Amino acid sequence: MQHFTSVQDITDWSLLWQKVQQVKENPQGRKTFGAGKAMCLIFLNASLRTRLSTQRAAMNVGLDTVVFDINQGGWQLEMADGAVMNGSKAEHVKEAAAVIGSYYNLIGIRAFAQLNDRDEDYQETIIQQFKKYAGVPIISLESSVRHPLQSLTDLITIEEYKKKERPKVVLSWAPHPRALPQAVANSFLEWMPYTNYEVVLTHPEGYELSDEFTQGIRTTNNQREALQNADFVYVKNWSSYRDYGQVLRTDDEWIINEDKMLLTDSAYFMHCLPVRRNVVVTDSVINSSDSLVIPQAAHRVTAAQTVLELLLDHA
Amino acid sequence: MQHFTSVQDITDWSLLWQKVQQVKENPQGRKTFGAGKAMCLIFLNASLRTRLSTQRAAMNVGLDTVVFDINQGGWQLEMADGAVMNGSKAEHVKEAAAVIGSYYNLIGIRAFAQLNDRDEDYQETIIQQFKKYAGVPIISLESSVRHPLQSLTDLITIEEYKKKERPKVVLSWAPHPRALPQAVANSFLEWMPYTNYEVVLTHPEGYELSDEFTQGIRTTNNQREALQNADFVYVKNWSSYRDYGQVLRTDDEWIINEDKMLLTDSAYFMHCLPVRRNVVVTDSVINSSDSLVIPQAAHRVTAAQTVLELLLDHA
Amino acid sequence: MQHFTSVQDITDWSLLWQKVQQVKENPQGRKTFGAGKAMCLIFLNASLRTRLSTQRAAMNVGLDTVVFDINQGGWQLEMADGAVMNGSKAEHVKEAAAVIGSYYNLIGIRAFAQLNDRDEDYQETIIQQFKKYAGVPIISLESSVRHPLQSLTDLITIEEYKKKERPKVVLSWAPHPRALPQAVANSFLEWMPYTNYEVVLTHPEGYELSDEFTQGIRTTNNQREALQNADFVYVKNWSSYRDYGQVLRTDDEWIINEDKMLLTDSAYFMHCLPVRRNVVVTDSVINSSDSLVIPQAAHRVTAAQTVLELLLDHA
Repeated sequence: MQHFTSVQDITDWSLLWQKVQQVKENPQGRKTFGAGKAMCLIFLNASLRTRLSTQRAAMNVGLDTVVFDINQGGWQLEMADGAVMNGSKAEHVKEAAAVIGSYYNLIGIRAFAQLNDRDEDYQETIIQQFKKYAGVPIISLESSVRHPLQSLTDLITIEEYKKKERPKVVLSWAPHPRALPQAVANSFLEWMPYTNYEVVLTHPEGYELSDEFTQGIRTTNNQREALQNADFVYVKNWSSYRDYGQVLRTDDEWIINEDKMLLTDSAYFMHCLPVRRNVVVTDSVINSSDSLVIPQAAHRVTAAQTVLELLLDHA
Repeated sequence: MQHFTSVQDITDWSLLWQKVQQVKENPQGRKTFGAGKAMCLIFLNASLRTRLSTQRAAMNVGLDTVVFDINQGGWQLEMADGAVMNGSKAEHVKEAAAVIGSYYNLIGIRAFAQLNDRDEDYQETIIQQFKKYAGVPIISLESSVRHPLQSLTDLITIEEYKKKERPKVVLSWAPHPRALPQAVANSFLEWMPYTNYEVVLTHPEGYELSDEFTQGIRTTNNQREALQNADFVYVKNWSSYRDYGQVLRTDDEWIINEDKMLLTDSAYFMHCLPVRRNVVVTDSVINSSDSLVIPQAAHRVTAAQTVLELLLDHA
Repeated sequence: MQHFTSVQDITDWSLLWQKVQQVKENPQGRKTFGAGKAMCLIFLNASLRTRLSTQRAAMNVGLDTVVFDINQGGWQLEMADGAVMNGSKAEHVKEAAAVIGSYYNLIGIRAFAQLNDRDEDYQETIIQQFKKYAGVPIISLESSVRHPLQSLTDLITIEEYKKKERPKVVLSWAPHPRALPQAVANSFLEWMPYTNYEVVLTHPEGYELSDEFTQGIRTTNNQREALQNADFVYVKNWSSYRDYGQVLRTDDEWIINEDKMLLTDSAYFMHCLPVRRNVVVTDSVINSSDSLVIPQAAHRVTAAQTVLELLLDHA
């Protein structure tokens, strides 16, 4: 595996699952694997799980890590080719990527969607520029379009908890007061064709995701129908892709509550966190024994460590 | 010792002092003690000594550490049970604590008093929530009420410099332009019953601390009287507990100067730092050979390393 | 070598070049050299290369490092002797330096020129205060006057790429929309007398640097004349020293473009980065195969590691 920026980067699925298993069984078993190598994690946006789990994963393989909040401690980056840089941006991504790639063996980068210009966001410019100019493996810590470390985590979690060969997995939109990116939902759906789950996507009208990710996915605007006999309910808000970056509704009709969970086959509740309690999901559901949010978040270390081990073979 | 959030957490004082001695003699003697474990230090407020000394202490025991300025790089935390989270707070402390506790073997957290609502501050909510939900040992890096790493440091320093069995230790309020928490003073007094020092507390009227900490402590509003024959003068400003969070006076009557130090028995001058020179204490006193502020601050590493070693036995 | 804050700190040049060679050949060859020691890097200003290369260099010698953005996570420092500290500055540099020096074996510090008061800036107060009070080796990560890690990097790069014994090295001013410090240019010139290069300085009228650094350096206001037969063109903007901190012109007459590079003897293009493309230098020049900006930046690790190894012998 050369980079880890989307599901397409995975070259050997059986090796991936073999690594997942090894990491789960003995996370401290390869403490010197990263010796003499170092990673730089660049954040343009807030992070709790990604920041802390990726650092812990790096420690587990003996990989030195620096964290760089580039907009606070560094320089604002220019992305455009040919720009006359006489504004607020002091450094071009071409130099930043190449320089950091000359210092570090691996680079992770988080750059959320800005939610202003859909075409710009969906080009994933910053992560593509880093892939082009850094010369070292790039790990997406969530791009404007995808969050593959989260998706791998989600698969690891479903695999661990599933009670049947082909569980029914429902991805449901839920309300939120702020405009959020589509990355987690896009990415989750992008990984689904690599499983044999029965997948259903449900959201209100206007919240359709890009065709690129929903092609072949059963979709309905009827949340209750979608939840029937579900084994896993994955809940996530996103802003509109059609009316790009807009919040079309904030009413609580789509909140996940106990009543809706009763429609399922005692489904597990999943969410990538952070979650707004009593807006996205009621306390009673997230506090219940069927809520997987903490073990799911804990598997962020499993996923990151697996990815690091696969990339270090080539770093 | 399961946590380190107040003097009450200490289960074995003789083991504690034995560790202090070992650490003082050979801080690098246990470089692999923390191997395979990792700590997360969470800061909601500024810090110099705590941030830097706790990291150094962790290095000394081979414990990997990440520092997380949660309000800058992470999400604002909701503390209230049952909150409908449709405001500015994106994550509940229940998830944050449990997730970080799933990644790290130890958690340190600093959360100052807000000085708006006394009852709220004195519940020490955030540190109590972390103790409840994180599932790993919690270290107070200064809560809204206490600063136990500072208090342990203070004791280590007094023990090292005392010239008699039962030294007279005076805790004196001093002026300051800003409203500061009561944590250092509360905590210092809370530790005093575990010593055999002669303790005197002195402050102007209106600056009484909570009964919880002053019970049984000799107290006077006459600073000069308190300083008579003192062996150690510990100086600290705090805002009013009665008129909660208020600065009642900023005149220089209570400044510590050479004239006042002459009343003492050649007392050592102590302060937890940062200190405002020529407001809290004159240059001549803090620059004198009786000023312990630098060796005292240096013992923050001794204290942190002792606490880490005691907690790691259970982490 | 006791400190590394200017070229005058270098006590043994042949040892320096011997170390440079060793580090270039085998950067991972001394992984345990810093064992049991630790360094604190303090930033008062933004940094990409310095922050990331110095950390990587420290990893390469097994030196534990903490990074401290003191204005974000710490306290604002008072510099003035005798100050009555009743304003916004909570801690005096005397305490901060001594305390950090008691925790860490080495301290790096970055404190840019403020560009308001020339005399104040040119006293390099903060770095001098750290040298005076910290009690451990101090590394300049760029002071208000000098940037010696950059200058060592520049020399390492020129030595590696020079094709003749005595190359012609031109330092040329270039335009920039913002007021920048003179540190990189000052420092570059300060190191030149320790080489046998033919050095020419060129800048528009009004951009003369301090005599302290230009004494004995051939200088011209004719950029094209300066570039004739150059082997290396080092480009950098700085604000006026005479009209202190002022930007006297922002037109593009002094930009480095292909046309000007044709005057040289196929010179290499150098810049310390970050660089504003198409303001300081055209895309065609910085993208060309004669541009050394990336290998030059990469040598920041070589320079930092060399300095760390020299200082660690005394830390």
